[in-house]
Amino acid sequence: MENLGLYTKLTSQPLFTGMSRDELERIVTQTRFDFIKAAPGHPIVAEGDRCGRLLLLVDGLMEAVTTADDRGYAVSEQLRAPFTLQPELVFGLSQRHTSTFAALTPCSLISIDKNETLRLTASSLILRLNLLNLLSTALQKQRHTPWRSLPHDLDHRVRRFFADHCLYPGGHKVFHIKMRRLAAELNDTRLRVSQVLNALQADGLLTLGRSRIVVPSMEALVG
Amino acid sequence: MENLGLYTKLTSQPLFTGMSRDELERIVTQTRFDFIKAAPGHPIVAEGDRCGRLLLLVDGLMEAVTTADDRGYAVSEQLRAPFTLQPELVFGLSQRHTSTFAALTPCSLISIDKNETLRLTASSLILRLNLLNLLSTALQKQRHTPWRSLPHDLDHRVRRFFADHCLYPGGHKVFHIKMRRLAAELNDTRLRVSQVLNALQADGLLTLGRSRIVVPSMEALVG
Repeated sequence: MENLGLYTKLTSQPLFTGMSRDELERIVTQTRFDFIKAAPGHPIVAEGDRCGRLLLLVDGLMEAVTTADDRGYAVSEQLRAPFTLQPELVFGLSQRHTSTFAALTPCSLISIDKNETLRLTASSLILRLNLLNLLSTALQKQRHTPWRSLPHDLDHRVRRFFADHCLYPGGHKVFHIKMRRLAAELNDTRLRVSQVLNALQADGLLTLGRSRIVVPSMEALVG
Repeated sequence: MENLGLYTKLTSQPLFTGMSRDELERIVTQTRFDFIKAAPGHPIVAEGDRCGRLLLLVDGLMEAVTTADDRGYAVSEQLRAPFTLQPELVFGLSQRHTSTFAALTPCSLISIDKNETLRLTASSLILRLNLLNLLSTALQKQRHTPWRSLPHDLDHRVRRFFADHCLYPGGHKVFHIKMRRLAAELNDTRLRVSQVLNALQADGLLTLGRSRIVVPSMEALVG
């Protein structure tokens, strides 16, 4: 019964998509999974923590906070299961989290350490393909960003700034940023940026607060 | 003798780094490599061509041209062996080249098709690790770019624009871009951009031509 639930959770994770019941059963019995629970308000991982493992949110809603290098602004996002937490940190040069994740509702995660992940990528063709596809698709998308067409007005430049500062392109976001800093990032004037933000607020796409901009639906803002 | 040269070439490729002579020998005898030669001035792959294979430059100097989505500007780079051509295109959502590559000197390449690559990533731990590390490191770097500290003046914003539009962060580049377009990309005035470019030219970091900016050494410009 315990395992039945686990199968269902795993098949909804992008990295396990497409696996037969038999293969999943083999993986579940032969792999060391660590199960992590986090109560609402409790941390999952902090920026700077060592990663070096696959970390999958299988249940719950969490908040991810990413802060600019100079600590000048931060973005907080609500992310719902299934979600893979920074899969680019299992391997590669830097293996420390660059965002802080905390539970908003009771959260369940599965952690698979680096060696187990490496072993799984050898024994399971599907997992290997899924991981290579996940990393490659994300890299294709990121490498494409500098070459996108120029936004034709400040309104679209503001929307693009918001979109480019998200781990996930949809859902609820809070941008903790002063209008002056947003203007500096866009190389425009505070007045013009303020006009654009107020127009977006009038359209119901965001709410302006003190040093914070709440975007209830990133899909609506970018769409 | 033929194989000896091939071993040397392969060990210098990032994807084969760290392999023992024995492992390389096994891979060379058990893998179907396709060898590609291109004479100076001849195309290697064109933007839009299907990739779906590992493509390694083992000898020679090539030119890569990447064009903005709206065809408003293009960047041409000189790239020397060893170089892996867009390794993020072997797997993932889009498997078509986004740059055009042509030989500047006689070029030799090795191509390993997707299925062979997938088989190699199962049989060789080192190749699997190298590929996962390569994709992960590139993705970490790209995902970090929006969070970098704000350039404190237009001079640094211009240099960052150049750096962000390169496949490889070093070497000789030609930016085929009008000053008006560069100014629009930076949301600044043509006059101010022209002043910055002329100062960089006076420092010997670039040469201004008609709709083109030649950067002899990207390391010097960015460093």
